[in-house]
This record gives sequence, C-alpha cells and structure tokens, in this order.
Amino acid sequence: MGAIRSIGVVGGGAWGTALALTAARAGREVRLWARDPGTVSDIRSRRQNPRYLPGITFDEELEATSSLEEVADADAILLVTPAQTTRAMLAALKQTGKVRGPVVLCAKGIEQSSGKLLSKVMSEELPGVEPGVLSGPSFADDVAKGLPTAVTVAANSAKTALSLCEAMQSPCFRPYASIDILGAQIGGALKNVLAIACGAVVGRKLGASAQAALTARGFAELSRLGTAMGAQGETLTGLSGLGDLVLTCSSSQSRNFSFGLRLGEGFMASELISAGGKLAEGAYSARVAVKLARKYDVEVPICETVARMIDEDLTIDDALNTLMARPLKSETAGL
Amino acid sequence: MGAIRSIGVVGGGAWGTALALTAARAGREVRLWARDPGTVSDIRSRRQNPRYLPGITFDEELEATSSLEEVADADAILLVTPAQTTRAMLAALKQTGKVRGPVVLCAKGIEQSSGKLLSKVMSEELPGVEPGVLSGPSFADDVAKGLPTAVTVAANSAKTALSLCEAMQSPCFRPYASIDILGAQIGGALKNVLAIACGAVVGRKLGASAQAALTARGFAELSRLGTAMGAQGETLTGLSGLGDLVLTCSSSQSRNFSFGLRLGEGFMASELISAGGKLAEGAYSARVAVKLARKYDVEVPICETVARMIDEDLTIDDALNTLMARPLKSETAGL
Repeated sequence: MGAIRSIGVVGGGAWGTALALTAARAGREVRLWARDPGTVSDIRSRRQNPRYLPGITFDEELEATSSLEEVADADAILLVTPAQTTRAMLAALKQTGKVRGPVVLCAKGIEQSSGKLLSKVMSEELPGVEPGVLSGPSFADDVAKGLPTAVTVAANSAKTALSLCEAMQSPCFRPYASIDILGAQIGGALKNVLAIACGAVVGRKLGASAQAALTARGFAELSRLGTAMGAQGETLTGLSGLGDLVLTCSSSQSRNFSFGLRLGEGFMASELISAGGKLAEGAYSARVAVKLARKYDVEVPICETVARMIDEDLTIDDALNTLMARPLKSETAGL
Repeated sequence: MGAIRSIGVVGGGAWGTALALTAARAGREVRLWARDPGTVSDIRSRRQNPRYLPGITFDEELEATSSLEEVADADAILLVTPAQTTRAMLAALKQTGKVRGPVVLCAKGIEQSSGKLLSKVMSEELPGVEPGVLSGPSFADDVAKGLPTAVTVAANSAKTALSLCEAMQSPCFRPYASIDILGAQIGGALKNVLAIACGAVVGRKLGASAQAALTARGFAELSRLGTAMGAQGETLTGLSGLGDLVLTCSSSQSRNFSFGLRLGEGFMASELISAGGKLAEGAYSARVAVKLARKYDVEVPICETVARMIDEDLTIDDALNTLMARPLKSETAGL
C-alpha cells in the first residue's frame, strides 16, 4: 500500500477521540465517526468531548460525523468501539461497501460469546480486508493531552505495519511496527484478569513486593499461553504485552483493578455483583483464559485462582494460600 | 549436597536481617553476623534492628554475632553486605578457613571498579566454593513483616538450587529455583539505571503511559544485553529480572528513582552532586551498562541517555527528544 493520507476513526469514546487527535497531529486528514450526535457536535463546534474527555480542549480541529459511510472510504480505518461491539461494527462497515484500506483493531479484549480474538472475528465479518492491531500502555487522557506514549502497531505485512506507523507518528506518539497481529492482541486480552489479581493483593495490603511478584508471575502465564497460541516472544515482552500489563497492574484507574481491590478487602464476587456491580471485563476473560489454557495444555494458576474467586466465591486468603502453597517450581524449564 | 540445616547470614542491614528472619521461619538454625556490636546486641536482647528496620519486633529469636568465624561453617551462607564490599567480605570469609557450604550472593549490583558481576568476583576471591544468587522483587520491610514475597534462587547445579529453595521456603516466602546464576544477576545490576529513567519521567510529570512504556522498553534493553551476556530468557522475564524491574520502576522508595525524580524536575546531575548528593548506584551502573552494550554490540538507548544525563548534564527535555525522535523501530526482529 502507498502512503496513508486519510484516516477514518470509528468510535467517539475517549480512546477513539485520542487516536483521532493523534492522527491529526501526525498530519493526517482525519474523520471521526461517533454514534452520539451530541458528541459529534461537541467535537465539531467546541473542540471537546466532554462526555469522555472532560476538561480537555483540543488544539486540533477534527471533522466528526455520525455517518459511517463518510469515514469508511479512508486510506485506513481505526476501529475503536468496545470489544464486544466489534462484530456488529465490522458488519456495519462491510454494509457501506466502501472499505478500501486496512482496518486497525484498537479495542482490547476477547469476544465473550465465542472466546475469539478480535482479528478472528474480523476474518469472519470482513474477509478480504487487511487487519491491523494497535495496542500498548496508553491512557486516553495522556494521549489526548499529548503526553509521550508508545504503542505496538501490527499488521500481517511489514509494509502495511510500517505505513501505519508512519501515518500515526508524531513527537509525542511513538508506534513500533510488528508483523505479529495475534501476539499484539494477547496482552490486551489477558491483562484484565491479572489486574484483578493485582487489585486483590493491594486490597489485602500485601505490599509492593507481592504486587511486583504477581506482575512477573502473571507475565509468565500470559507469555506461556501467548506462545502456545502462536504469539512471538518479542511481541509479548513488548509494549502491547508487558508494557500494557505493567500499566494495568500498577494503576488503580482501571475498573478491573478496582474490582480486585474490593475482593482483596474481603468482599465476595457474588456480593459485589448482587449489589448491582457490573462484572469487570477481566471476570469474563478469566474463564476464557482458563479454557484456552486447558486447550493448549499450559498452567495458568493466577488466572485459575481469579476465575475461582469469581465463580466459586473463593476467599482472598484461600486464594493466596492456593498460590503460595503450590509445590516448589523452578523458573528454568525442565529443572 | 544434603539438606541444609544451618544458615549463616553475613550482613546485619535491613535485607540481611529480613533474610535471617526468613530462614528462621523456614525452620533453619540461623546465625547472623553484623559488623556493628550495637546491632548484634539489639537483635539478641530486644529482637529488633532499630537502625535498619525501625519499628519492627521479630517473632523469631535470632542468634547474632560479630565473629565471622561463628557463621562461616554453616551448611549455607547468605552474603548480604553491600555490593561494593563483596570482594572484601569474600576474602574475609576465605580467611576463616571454615567455609563448607554454598555462598549465596544476595546483594545486587556490579563491582564499580572492575565492571564485574559479583559471581565473577566470587570466582576470583573464593574459588572452589559453590556460588548461589538470591534475587527478586523484595523490600526488606515487607519480608521482615512476613508479607508474601517470591524470589529467584539460582545455583550452578539444580540440586543445590532446590536445596536452597527448600531451606528458605515458608508460607510467606516463595523461592523459585534456577540454574542460571549469571541471568539472575542481570536484573539487579541494571534495574537501577532504568529506575533513574523512570524517576525522571515521573519528575517531568509525563504520565503513567510513558512510565509503563519506559519500563517495557527498558526491559527490552535489559533483555538484549542479558541475552548477549549469556542469560536465559526465562530468567530475564522471571522474578530477578522483570519482577525486580517492575518493583524498582514503580516505587519512589528507591534512592535511584528519587535521583531520577530530581533530574526530571529540571536539576542537572552536576548540581545534585555538588550540592552534596551522593551518586545513586544506578549512576555508576549506567556507564558500565553502556560499556557492556558496546562490547556485546547491542543497543541500549535508555541506558545511554541516563549516562549522558549524568556525565554530560543532558537536560530532561533533550533526553526525551533523543528517545522519542529515534528512527522508527520495529518490535519484530529484522522487520
């Protein structure tokens, strides 16, 4: 593919808006699709997205629209709607009959109904269109404000990956190219499970050493499962894998971490849910991870423990005993 | 070697005391050597080490002594004096003529005068004695209080590594065995350089996304250099590598992180030093890392930038521009 001049961003939430701003800063012609007409007019007339990025006024002017047709024919599309709406949005994009360029998946997660990665969903809904993945440690607020951020941008061909990187790069946004679109999705799909575990450790006041150990052992699980599924090692230790895991496991800003925090404070998952709490994404991903681990025959004790806390109301102390009392293991394979 | 019944701990600082308590909890017969007679008597009579672990009273009774001879003949020795005193302490241990068991290096760092890893120093000063390495994400305070902690314990033979793990394991302390003593030292040797960089990013208020990206890209450097030096990948992604890096890069408790924080606030390294500040360990390690990277022909842009901030008073903003403006790189090797 040639140089990417125009970018269509599908999704007017915090992350979609931040990525649209990023593309504009990189000099691209940007059109942003948002479902909500109020968001479209706020972005157009006030250079703000008060619902999702309160208090931030953009330096950049963004063209916004609520017509999907108007963004579908861009040189490249960033799909930034929630993971569970990916299938429907891809079908809607196909309906326009206008998609030419690669479609870059920017949401993180696994389709809960099928347990499929989003690139698999895309191969079913929009076959023949080149898929891409953009993932990495990034709070939409940081990116919208122009704070320095680095992400992985993956496509099946090096040429497309590098074109996408060039199209998005600016002094505050640094994309690293990859040809491992499967690997680039693993971190985003599993990090929320581990964020629940880290939240629980913090909620139980177990100290920074335990939190760091859990992050490292959690990475070992993510890495084992990812490798078994076909991801490349350097992707897993990269920004979309390790980088995003570090951010999620160290920050109380995420809903998954907060959910874990309450579990660590002694609440049962069933209590939190019956009190009207919505299950955090990682609660579903935990079950999917355990299923995948069985399928690929790898051990994921932390994911399993999180799944048991959610499905069987395993208490935090029993969860910890389970993890700490496992038979002595070695870090060196086969020792 | 057979089961380890007695453990001699050399070093009465915070970490030495915490490890002595850990060995006692694991049911070992423990003798702790401390240079300072006040520390010896405080530990003996008050079950406290007020100088290094203020406010903590031990549940365990520890035998403490200021005679090195009395600890040297234990089944295993943990050497927990500061990295830069390792050579002298090993020589002193040799002088006793009593060392039988493995000597486990528990300090982190590189010998500044020679640029050598501590296991290399040990092979020179105490040849014929089996070396071990204990390293991982661990604040002495957390460990002394019995909060859950996991570390890597490495030796050249699997048998010794597993014996040492068994000897130290308790419900709150989980050692993972490794036969990669070189790899187990890499994280501890390089993490302080990266902690300076992370501190600088936080001091400059660049946001959590930038901090996480720096941690991941920093790990990539640690991993490249470690691999070139002969470390195993699974050790680098393990507790002594990734785990310790995550802890150091996310915590403001470390002196290296604080030093970086001031750099990020706009102070020059030369100002901080001439104002009477002692150079943090990572400041020396930065130069050593750059030298090693040249020797092994790997790229370490973050370590190089930290070294330039220290040696050439590169400003934080120039440092960031240098890092963000590098040519587009890929995560996939050879792309």
